[in-house]
Order: sequence, then structure tokens, then C-alpha cells
Amino acid sequence: MLLELKADTNYLDKQALIERLENMGFRVVESDANILAIIGGIDSLVVTEAFAELPNVAKVHPLTANFKLASRQTKASDTIITIKNKQIGGKELFIIAGPCSIESREQLEACAKVAKENGAHALRGGAYKPRTSPYEFQGMGVPGLELIAEIGAKYDLVTVSEVMEISQLEVASKYLDVIQIGARNMQNYGLLTELGKIKNPVLLKRGFAATYQELLMAAEYIMLSGNPNVILCERGIRTFETFTRNTLDLNAVPALQQLTHLPIVADPSHGTGVRSLVLPMARASVAAGAHGILVEMHPNPDKSISDAKQTLSFETFAELTKQVRKIKAALE
Amino acid sequence: MLLELKADTNYLDKQALIERLENMGFRVVESDANILAIIGGIDSLVVTEAFAELPNVAKVHPLTANFKLASRQTKASDTIITIKNKQIGGKELFIIAGPCSIESREQLEACAKVAKENGAHALRGGAYKPRTSPYEFQGMGVPGLELIAEIGAKYDLVTVSEVMEISQLEVASKYLDVIQIGARNMQNYGLLTELGKIKNPVLLKRGFAATYQELLMAAEYIMLSGNPNVILCERGIRTFETFTRNTLDLNAVPALQQLTHLPIVADPSHGTGVRSLVLPMARASVAAGAHGILVEMHPNPDKSISDAKQTLSFETFAELTKQVRKIKAALE
Amino acid sequence: MLLELKADTNYLDKQALIERLENMGFRVVESDANILAIIGGIDSLVVTEAFAELPNVAKVHPLTANFKLASRQTKASDTIITIKNKQIGGKELFIIAGPCSIESREQLEACAKVAKENGAHALRGGAYKPRTSPYEFQGMGVPGLELIAEIGAKYDLVTVSEVMEISQLEVASKYLDVIQIGARNMQNYGLLTELGKIKNPVLLKRGFAATYQELLMAAEYIMLSGNPNVILCERGIRTFETFTRNTLDLNAVPALQQLTHLPIVADPSHGTGVRSLVLPMARASVAAGAHGILVEMHPNPDKSISDAKQTLSFETFAELTKQVRKIKAALE
Amino acid sequence: MLLELKADTNYLDKQALIERLENMGFRVVESDANILAIIGGIDSLVVTEAFAELPNVAKVHPLTANFKLASRQTKASDTIITIKNKQIGGKELFIIAGPCSIESREQLEACAKVAKENGAHALRGGAYKPRTSPYEFQGMGVPGLELIAEIGAKYDLVTVSEVMEISQLEVASKYLDVIQIGARNMQNYGLLTELGKIKNPVLLKRGFAATYQELLMAAEYIMLSGNPNVILCERGIRTFETFTRNTLDLNAVPALQQLTHLPIVADPSHGTGVRSLVLPMARASVAAGAHGILVEMHPNPDKSISDAKQTLSFETFAELTKQVRKIKAALE
Repeated sequence: MLLELKADTNYLDKQALIERLENMGFRVVESDANILAIIGGIDSLVVTEAFAELPNVAKVHPLTANFKLASRQTKASDTIITIKNKQIGGKELFIIAGPCSIESREQLEACAKVAKENGAHALRGGAYKPRTSPYEFQGMGVPGLELIAEIGAKYDLVTVSEVMEISQLEVASKYLDVIQIGARNMQNYGLLTELGKIKNPVLLKRGFAATYQELLMAAEYIMLSGNPNVILCERGIRTFETFTRNTLDLNAVPALQQLTHLPIVADPSHGTGVRSLVLPMARASVAAGAHGILVEMHPNPDKSISDAKQTLSFETFAELTKQVRKIKAALE
Repeated sequence: MLLELKADTNYLDKQALIERLENMGFRVVESDANILAIIGGIDSLVVTEAFAELPNVAKVHPLTANFKLASRQTKASDTIITIKNKQIGGKELFIIAGPCSIESREQLEACAKVAKENGAHALRGGAYKPRTSPYEFQGMGVPGLELIAEIGAKYDLVTVSEVMEISQLEVASKYLDVIQIGARNMQNYGLLTELGKIKNPVLLKRGFAATYQELLMAAEYIMLSGNPNVILCERGIRTFETFTRNTLDLNAVPALQQLTHLPIVADPSHGTGVRSLVLPMARASVAAGAHGILVEMHPNPDKSISDAKQTLSFETFAELTKQVRKIKAALE
Repeated sequence: MLLELKADTNYLDKQALIERLENMGFRVVESDANILAIIGGIDSLVVTEAFAELPNVAKVHPLTANFKLASRQTKASDTIITIKNKQIGGKELFIIAGPCSIESREQLEACAKVAKENGAHALRGGAYKPRTSPYEFQGMGVPGLELIAEIGAKYDLVTVSEVMEISQLEVASKYLDVIQIGARNMQNYGLLTELGKIKNPVLLKRGFAATYQELLMAAEYIMLSGNPNVILCERGIRTFETFTRNTLDLNAVPALQQLTHLPIVADPSHGTGVRSLVLPMARASVAAGAHGILVEMHPNPDKSISDAKQTLSFETFAELTKQVRKIKAALE
Repeated sequence: MLLELKADTNYLDKQALIERLENMGFRVVESDANILAIIGGIDSLVVTEAFAELPNVAKVHPLTANFKLASRQTKASDTIITIKNKQIGGKELFIIAGPCSIESREQLEACAKVAKENGAHALRGGAYKPRTSPYEFQGMGVPGLELIAEIGAKYDLVTVSEVMEISQLEVASKYLDVIQIGARNMQNYGLLTELGKIKNPVLLKRGFAATYQELLMAAEYIMLSGNPNVILCERGIRTFETFTRNTLDLNAVPALQQLTHLPIVADPSHGTGVRSLVLPMARASVAAGAHGILVEMHPNPDKSISDAKQTLSFETFAELTKQVRKIKAALE
């Protein structure tokens, strides 16, 4: 429910109203302008008219989306998240790059150096790897987190890495700037709820058969649990096409931007699974309006322990950053 | 890798060979006849020839599937799991029935009574509910588990309920006979690994965009971690069709039976999401060869807190059990 | 629109009303009981009330489905189509069998003999083959039609073969009993309209990405154009699964039976594309309620010019017919 | 098969070789540089070595793709098609715009004027409309073709309109510059073969469940039948997502460009089915590398007889053309 306040409501009266609503058991979000969003509680049981009679309330609007905190209705302006003096969700394109898996200090540092030289903002690298097969490399674990924290600090890069379960969250939230939740865990509701209790921004990847609405409901779990800093990530869906590993669904970018105020990045590496498609689809992601992109690169792509088929060389990554920035400039 | 032993290998020599292999760091599975399956370790690095020279080894066969323990290659005969003197995977059709969510003692007991009267083997009911929206009923939790344990004992029914995260596993494994893993958690690898450490059989539901191979790889995680009692469940996949909530993919039943020795049940309730389709699709599931079916019912289907649209009345459930048993009989 | 007539309306008054409606530019279908369905014309512009005032009209009901003639609303009882003294849509299971492509007299006659011996009702065989590649065998054409007509007559089997374009329709409708429209042409509206002008029943295959509603709208094109004898065929849809060539969607069988009065057959050969899945999925098709099944067989399956991977041997076909009849009997 | 000629082969010797091959029953395509592509005939039966011994042949390369004439292997350089002094497939972005259906002279001329003013190259408008329902507007037919021909000439715009069946082809090929084949007819092989016999370039839309390879095989039908001027069009595929009508698959653009030399356009209007997504997805299409875009507009979008939900206003179209040109400029 959205409460539109009277135009002349002063600061103190507004705070008093918020306190009163919170005492009634609601979560109150100060939306843009003079609008308060009322979330949860015994929402559906409440008589709308009761709200209309509260002091300073001019009009009551229903919240039509199933997601409330994530909805553009609740907050009209874009959410901008600032990490290490870098912004995502604002005017500048946010570039996240790095290897699929953290394999060694040398490998990760080489990637960080190239990322920094080419103007990337964040370094990604997997320490815990969700693998379809239990016989495949499962990631370096905590030593990997230590490495990315150290190298991220050295090169002034925001660090991003995936967490797969609640037990990893405490240590990961210390070492990492941004916690990534992978496609397979997008509806792991226990994990989502725990993410609400930490301060780190969360990069939430769309499940490979999740609708836009389901992605936003997953974000809602995190937000409702207390963490408003959710970055959505389109990373490809499952279709009948076999040339690509996934079908990067760029329609999600403008569609989500209509539905939510949260930042949206696109991952053309996983989204296509084909190295030669990453550059053009990175360009397309930016043209579609993505706030950022996430790409995989490796000093020796063909020797990457995981996802070798989609990993860029440093040369291609450098070219990619040039091209996406030209596209970004053309949008202004 | 499969080691075919010489025809005249005696029991003690076979045990000695198994011990030797285990000391080399391998997991050894005694397959049907005189075949040993060798799993894991430094599998891909091992020289096949070395195995051929071990005592009593007649021939070495590669294991071609990515899944090993779950593979029909490793174990040719059907796995039969016995719980409370009832068998799943054998000749008798195993019927699992109950409400989507456990709502009250009255509701659950009414379901148990009808299940028992109609020859069902197991009682299902959700205590922890994975809900797309954080604003929806999340289940009764432990009191729900207590209820199902008590009522399952009273009516001599195997109990089945979903666990969503590792922290719920300890209490759930005490109260429940079978732990269900839902579609959303099929690739929650941390949870799968923990399931390997408990004794309870696991009902593993196919993710709604998971391939047959991915389902089997998820089973492999559980089995490799120590729990061989995995029951696979086909519960519908996502397609473009909107008349049904999901598309129950019965092709999975005979396809999986070729690939694996594990029991397979079908869930026409979630698989269609449409009440009027549950009965015919339950029949079709059995005709396709499913070892069991899982259906939702409720004393007052339209008042079911969750999944009302697909929940059967007691009358329809009774009719369903008659019809599926006639189909089962026709297969003999 | 459905006109419910007064209980005491006599034959002559009913005919007079029909004539009057036809003179107004409508198509009138005599539905079961004392109901007339009014189709087309300036449908949406018509004032419902005007109909209520016609003589003998008790009540006017709207037709809610987009398809009218195909709708169960318009005609509550199952449509039964009789061809060569054999019925499809009635109580007996209708079995259609034969090779993918007609290759020679020997091959087709061998199939017909085995079909007849095993109680099949119809012989299928492709004379015009829709091939993804222009470099593949395109079918024998008219000589193939001549062969199937001759052999169908000899063995008293209903003949079924695919027509791909309007120019083939004249000759095909002479030689064949049933004209098959393949999945690729399900929305070839010009062809559908021409099918309305012939007398032969039409076997209309579901497009591999067509919804149930779209399939029914395609049937509506044929029916509206004058041919009421449409047999629907589920033959598999495209999904992300790669183990099967298509995903046979048996949910379509009971779903369509709710929506339409037309007969429905299932094609587990194309529907799975995997030989070893055809038999169990044929059983499941019948258990789901299909009025018939369509399967491919060949004297030497591995040498079939087309679709070798899914074609049954004669032995498997004989076993299949036994099993599906047992399933059919279990439904009674 | 590709024949690489010796470096010093002169013009006359090359022509003699081509003639000799054609006399052997092959189709010969002069590929870039000194390479001849050999298509069809008894292809698979031919002994490769025999070709190696022909005069002036330096080396024989197999053609690995199933499509031959459409393959980048056969012709490395981009195909550029020139129509009314405008090029598609070259450096300039080709913009096709107009209403979904031709409704009247006023409507079409208004669109043509706005298209021309904003630098579009082609005017589209449907005269024959493939409609899911037989009760919906089926198009103006020939009078519509006359209108678009007249208005296209007046505004110097290439004309594009859909043909649904062979019988429409003769008249349509007179009135239109480019014949469009819709998604539903992508595998209407009789129609594709007939298109090979006309001179008009063909805009071939991808079927909504067709793979990239199937689209290229459909193009191959047209090319093999004699018409090399095929323009491919990505127009959205069917997925589980319901927010959009289709999922525009922009991965197709760079993927197809690797596989084929044919021009590729994207249709964000049908591809999304959502008006507010057309502009950002048009930008993304161009950034992905599309040679052109196809968009629907209407003087009064909400009153469009067909596809109103996705049709742009003139104002949005004008803005779109500005933005896509900026993106195109950024690619240089």
C-alpha cells in the first residue's frame, strides 16, 4: 500500500506517522516525494479506509505488484549502490571481470591488473564453485576468498564471488565486497533470508528458468529480510537452441527496469556460453540499458579449469571494454 | 571404471581386491554379478592398464556416463528401498498422498485416514514451504514435523516432507522417514552433500529446467556423499504452454529407467498444476512405468492454503487409486 | 453464441429458426440436446438481446472460447469419425502404424501385413516428406500415394499420409482416406482452409511450439471452412531436454479432451524420437486417454531412409499392440 | 565441397572447370578468392580424390555445415543486396518500418511519410495476415498490395509484405520489392522452393521454435532453388517467460553472422510484443550487429487492427531512429 501524504506535511509529522505505522506492525519505506510504502504485516486483512483517515494522508494507493520493496511503484528513482567509491545503478557503466574460478595468485592477479588497466570496477572469481558433477573442481574455498580480498584491495577493485550456502556466508561477507548468488540458488529461500542480515550488496543471478517476477520475488526475500542492496543479473535462460549454452535474454533488461528500481547487470559469458558471442552480446547488453556487465577472462582461456569455452583472452577483454564504452557514450 | 572379475574369483580374493582398491583411495561398489565399480579418486589420471593387471581382474570397462553410482552401468538391477516394511522400486506401486501444506492435526489426520483406506503407502505434507513470495505462508515448521511423525506412526504410513536447508536436516531426519528435496533445491550442492550423511531415503525432485542428466548428477552428489537411497521424482518442467502450470514430462520415466537403477516416482499434481488433469496423468505415469506416484489431496481442496488449484478431493483420490492399480495390473 | 431452445420446440420450428439464422448470415451448428451454436458472421457486433427475442429461444449463452466449432461448449458429446467401417473417437483404441517414408512396395506391404495381423486400423506412410534439408530424400510423391491406396485397400486399412501444400491436395484426397498435416504446417492457414473443402478426415499434428489453444484454432480453420472431421495429434514439443528429440506432452491429451469434442491421438515415435521410449510412451498415451496412437515401424528399422532412430521393429510393434490393448482394457 | 584452385589459374581455365563440373551435374558457386563451392548432385557418393585430380585444383576441402549455399564456408564475404539503390547487408543500417496490417491509404501513407522523414529505407505492411483465429481480420489482399506498391514508389521506399502461400506469389512478386515469409511458414518447403524461382529478395523470419541451423536450412531451400537473395530475420522465440509475448533472441545475430554470409535483421516489435521494450531492444539489436531492424508503427497505435500492444507511435519511432543511428555510429 502507498500512502500519498498531503503536500504540506512537515518533517516531524511525517516521522510521527512513520512511527505510528511501525508500531502497528508494518514496515514503512520512504518512497520518492511525499509517499510512504507500507509493507507486510497483516497487509491483506487491513481495511484500506483506515489508512485514509490517518493524519496527513491525502490518498491511499494499492501496491499492485507481488513484490513490494523491489517495485518501481514503491521507489520511483533508480537505486544506486556505492562500493569502494564506485557506483552501480548510476550513470557510469559498471564492469565486472575476472576468471570463472580462482586458480592461483598469479592467475587472479594477472586478471586484476588487466581489469584495472581497462577501467573495470570489480574483480570476480569463484572460490566456491557450484558444479553439476561432484567429480569436478569445487573451488579453492577460503584461501580463494583471502586471495581475492588481498588482490581486490591492491588494485582498488570491488570484489565479487559466489556463496552457495549459509555456512559460507559469515567468512565470505568479511572477505568480499559483493556476495554473488548463482542461478541454481536463486530460490534457495533460507540463503536469501540470511543475505538480508548482512551489509554486503548482493549480486542475484536469475535462475535459468525463472521468470522476471520470480527474480524480483527472490530479491524481495533479501530486501524484506533487511538488505536493500540487491543487484539483479541476467545470465541466460534455457531454451531449445543448442548452438548456445544458454540464451541471454536481453529483454529482461528493459523489462526489469520498468518493474524495479534495482540495478541490473548482464552476463554475456554465461548467457551465451560461446566465447565468440561475448563481445557482441556485451555491446547489446549495454545498448539494452544494463547498468553493468559481468564477463569472464583468463590469462590462458583454453586452460581455464572451468567454463573455458566462454572465457575471453585479455586482448578480447580490452577490446570489449573499448566497445562497450562507446555504446554507453552513444546512449547519452 | 568397471572391473570384470574372473569367473572363478572366490569371496576372500574379492574382498582382498576391494580392500586394496580402497587403500589406493577409490570408492568401490559391488555391482551385480562379478563386477566392481571403481569411483572417484584420481579417476581420470589413472592408467587403465594398471587395473587390468590386478589379481582376478578379467577385463576393464570404462564408465561412460558422467554419473557413476547412479548409473545402470554400475548396478544393473533395480534399487529397491524398504521403509516401514513397504517397498519402493519393486513390483508394487508406491502411492504417496497428502496435503500440500500441513495445516492442522485435523486436516492431516483426515488425509492420513483416507490415504490408508485407499491403500496408499506414504503420507506427505509440507512443514517447510518454499514460497515464491516472502509474504505467503511459510509452513508450520517443527510442530508440523511432529504432527506428521505422530500421524504417520498411528496410520502406519511412511512420512515424506520437504527440507529446504541444512539447518533443518537434523530435526527433520529424526521426525521423517523420507526427506524430500524440492525442485528449487535440486542443485543446492551443499544440501545434497549433507543428505549423503543421513540414513533417511531422499525423494529428489527434478528441477523445473533440469535435464535428465542433471537430475542424475544431483543424485550422484547424495550417493557419493554416502546415502545410496535416492528416489527420483518427475514433477513437471517449464515450457511455453500456459494451460498447465508445468508440463509433466513422462518421457523422463522410461528414459531415466534406462540410465539409472534408482526408483522413479511421478508427481502429476505439481506436474500439471490443474486438478482435472491429475487423475489421467496419474494413470499415464503408471503406464509409463513409474514405481510410484505422489499426489496432493485435501479435505476441502478449495480451501487449501497452498496449491489449491491442483489439490484433489478425497473422492477423486479414492477413484484415482482404483484406476492406477488397474493400470499397474495391466502391466504385468 | 449458444441458443438454448425451449424444451417443447418441435422439429419444424427448430428448422425454421435455423433457416432464419442462416439467412441472417450466420453458420448454425446443431449442438447436443436443444442447443444451437451460432458461429461467425458479424459476431462481435451483434446485440445478444436480439437473439433472446427469437421464437423458441429460452436463453442465450456466450461462447467463451476463441475456438467455436471445435469447442466442447458447442458440442458436448465426443465426435466419432467412421472411416472404412472403423471408428476413431469412440470406445475402441485406433492404431495407426507404418513406415516414416514409403520406400517400396515390398517395404509398405510388409508393414501393412504386420499392422493388420496385430489389429491396427490404419496404415501410414509418407509420400511427401517435409525435410529440414533440401539435400535429403523428399518422398516418392504420387507413386507413393498409389502404392498406399492399393495396399490399404488390399489389407482393409485406413490410409494416412501427409500433404504439405495445396497443389498436392487434389490428388492426395483421391488416393488417401485421411490427410495428415504435419507440425510444420499447423499454421499454414491457406492449406487449412483448403482442407475444409475436401471430404477426407484430417489428422492435424500439433506444431512443436504450438499451445493447445493454437492447435484448436488451427482445427477451427478447417472446420469453419467446411470439414468437421478433424483428428488432433500430439507429437511432442520443443523443450531444453536433449536426451529426447522432442518432449511428448501427454498433458495435452486430457487437457484437449476438456476443451474439445474432437478425437485425439498421440504419436510417441516423433514425440520422443527415441526407439526405446516408444513402447512405454504408447502405453502412457492410452492411459492418459488418447483415442488412438500413431507409431512408426519398418521391416529393417536401422535402414529406414528417415527417422531410423525412432522406428520400431515388427517384433516390438507386435508387443506394443498387446500392451496398449491391455491398458485400454484397464480403463473400462 | 570446396575446391581451392591453384594460384595462377586464369579466367578461361576457371570457366572451363566450372562448365565441366556443371556437366557432371553439380551446382557450382564462385566463392571469394579462388575457391569454387560444389553443391548437391550425388554429393555424398562422390570420391573426394576424383576432384583433387581435376585441372587447376590445388586442394579439396569438405563443406562441414548441413547448409551449403548459405554457409560462410562457401562464401566468406557478406552478401549485400541492393534494392531501389538501397543496400542491406553492407555498412549502412537498413530500417524497415510500417503498420502491422495495411488498413487504408491514409494509414499507410502516413506511415510512409514518417518512415521517409526519419530515414527509413523500407515500408512494411501486411496485405495477407496469418491470424491464429479464422475470425480475425485476414488482411486487405491484392488491394493492399496495390496500395503499398503505389505508396512505396511515391516515397522511394523498398516495399516489404508477407506472402503466405504459393498462389499469392505471382501477384505479390509483381507489386512488392521484398517478399516476407513469416515465422509460421519458415518450414513450408513448397513455398520456399517456389521463392527460389522469383527474383525478389526474400525476408525469411525465424520460426518461433526454430534453431539457427533450421533457419539456415530454410534459407538453403530458397537458395538451392535459384534465389540467392535471402535476408534472415530474428523475431523472437517461445520460452516460459510470460511478461513478453516472445523472447527476442539477439544471440542469433552474432551467431548467424558466424555461420552465414546472408544479411540479418532483427524485429523487436514481434520479438518482444511489448511496446515499451521495442526502443531499447532495437538499440540492442544494432549493437549486437544486426544489418537492419524491422519495427511496427501506426498513426494511432492503440487503434491498430492487429498487434496494437507492440506498435509504436510516430513520436517513439522518430526517437528510435535517432537512437539506433547513434548506436550504429558507435560501432565504427
